[in-house]
Amino acid sequence: MTSPSSPSGKSVPRQVTVRAPGTVANIVCGYDVLGLALHRPFDEVSVALNDTGEVSLTVDGDRGMLPRDTEANVASAVIKRFLEQTGQTEIGAQVHLRKQMPLNSGMGSSSASAVAALIAINHLTGNQFSRKELLPLATEGERIACGNAHADNVAPALLGGVVLVRSHTPLDVKKLPCPDHLQVAVVHPHIDVPTRESRKILKPRIPLPEAVTQWGNVAGLTAGFCTGDTALIGRSMTDVIFEPVRSMLIPGFYDMKRISQKCGALGFGISGSGPSVFALCESVETAEAITAQLTEFLRKAGIDSDAFVSGINMNGAEVLSEG
Amino acid sequence: MTSPSSPSGKSVPRQVTVRAPGTVANIVCGYDVLGLALHRPFDEVSVALNDTGEVSLTVDGDRGMLPRDTEANVASAVIKRFLEQTGQTEIGAQVHLRKQMPLNSGMGSSSASAVAALIAINHLTGNQFSRKELLPLATEGERIACGNAHADNVAPALLGGVVLVRSHTPLDVKKLPCPDHLQVAVVHPHIDVPTRESRKILKPRIPLPEAVTQWGNVAGLTAGFCTGDTALIGRSMTDVIFEPVRSMLIPGFYDMKRISQKCGALGFGISGSGPSVFALCESVETAEAITAQLTEFLRKAGIDSDAFVSGINMNGAEVLSEG
Repeated sequence: MTSPSSPSGKSVPRQVTVRAPGTVANIVCGYDVLGLALHRPFDEVSVALNDTGEVSLTVDGDRGMLPRDTEANVASAVIKRFLEQTGQTEIGAQVHLRKQMPLNSGMGSSSASAVAALIAINHLTGNQFSRKELLPLATEGERIACGNAHADNVAPALLGGVVLVRSHTPLDVKKLPCPDHLQVAVVHPHIDVPTRESRKILKPRIPLPEAVTQWGNVAGLTAGFCTGDTALIGRSMTDVIFEPVRSMLIPGFYDMKRISQKCGALGFGISGSGPSVFALCESVETAEAITAQLTEFLRKAGIDSDAFVSGINMNGAEVLSEG
Repeated sequence: MTSPSSPSGKSVPRQVTVRAPGTVANIVCGYDVLGLALHRPFDEVSVALNDTGEVSLTVDGDRGMLPRDTEANVASAVIKRFLEQTGQTEIGAQVHLRKQMPLNSGMGSSSASAVAALIAINHLTGNQFSRKELLPLATEGERIACGNAHADNVAPALLGGVVLVRSHTPLDVKKLPCPDHLQVAVVHPHIDVPTRESRKILKPRIPLPEAVTQWGNVAGLTAGFCTGDTALIGRSMTDVIFEPVRSMLIPGFYDMKRISQKCGALGFGISGSGPSVFALCESVETAEAITAQLTEFLRKAGIDSDAFVSGINMNGAEVLSEG
């Protein structure tokens, strides 16, 4: 059995392990259009090519929660789509998803799996597609996993950094410059808020003045990242539309916001559709103080949680090993 | 009679002439939050201090259209507010407004007058306030002139360049970096669309998906300016909320849009609340071709117009002469 060749003529590996990071979608005001990549938590996907012409799947770390059907599990499903769309259905692949991220956490768990799987299969078939070119398939993975084909988690997981999704139809994303010292404190309370539910409680129409306030903040946040104006980033991390509704599903949300602000966070809000919350900070010390205090606050309220402190991951998913 | 002294001890002049530029508010998608400054057209305001303790006003160039009452005319009104708020009511001022901009054009005519007047009186009283500090008073001038205290014309007229008004309450503005080769073609059809009417036809609530589309574009436009990505600027100059409604008041709007796009405009839309339209271009030649073709298009439709080609004015209002 010979390895397939890449366009450059170099031989390509037969198996690879890829790590893709968790992400914070929305970044408070940028509902459906902004997201950033973390270093941790993350998922890992290993893919080994074979000659069966079939995609098979194993999963660990999910306590049996994720589907094992290769059409329903996002990691295997996007690999099947990739092979179909590129006309490589003769290729077989053994996919192993090492689930390390909590499910339904609001940290882009399904996106991380989809992105890791796509980077892996693209790597094993000669890296014919750029990361931006993989984005539509990754977004399709998001639709498979949670019913909505949104790119605000998959785009930063793929590209790294802070990513603007200007448009979904057609997909148009821009990786924004951003200050390199920012730290993110993420706290995941162990309560159940499925993404579908969290989207359902949003109102279908919004008052024009609130919309104007929101796009002023979205533009402010964008300008803050692009120009390194951290004070502007902080002032712009205000959500007048979704937070007042979605925060009702997160016990103690406004207490946690006050605690974070008191610790010196630039801004605080819901990560994606929750229940995780996050604070953007200018130092590791501030971020660690916030995770410690929020975890303790939740513990006193009888709610378990896990917490992460991470810089912004400027590279996104990474190939860990190949062979 | 001695001249007042500035904080630095330098003597300050007794009279000054200030030019303030027209502005393009919204820049298509950034309703109420984005604006840019032109070099032309512009208004000029001359102010001479005296000892009467009164503010008096003369106006030329407006064909008698603007109020002569010093409380109602924006140029004298903001000077009165300035002297009241700074406790300098013993100062008298002879204000002369040399109106050069068309009224109700959508190019920020009232803002230009307000800003020129404020820069003049600030200059004559020792430049105690930065331009940003003058912004609330200039915005108050906008309320006097057109009933709405919006800053998306006054902020670029004061500060120059492309300006984001992140928030009106409190006022929070950010001058954005922007590519220095951009040219603006503005065409002002001689039809009557008062700002008040143009705001009135807007719906009070908007569908959430349209709002998301709009803030994706507002963020894209902001990122495009900040990073010099002119293609992104062009793709982001799309307004799914206001243009479909306001364009009905502008005869031939979509024809003019097609003409501009065919000429190579990055983007095209309504300037402020209209009836002026503008195109953002990457060269003087493109901008001049657009003004020529649009002017001819309107002429054939029996509509007179005037047109301007201008780079983005990075400095805003300027002091022309003093004595």
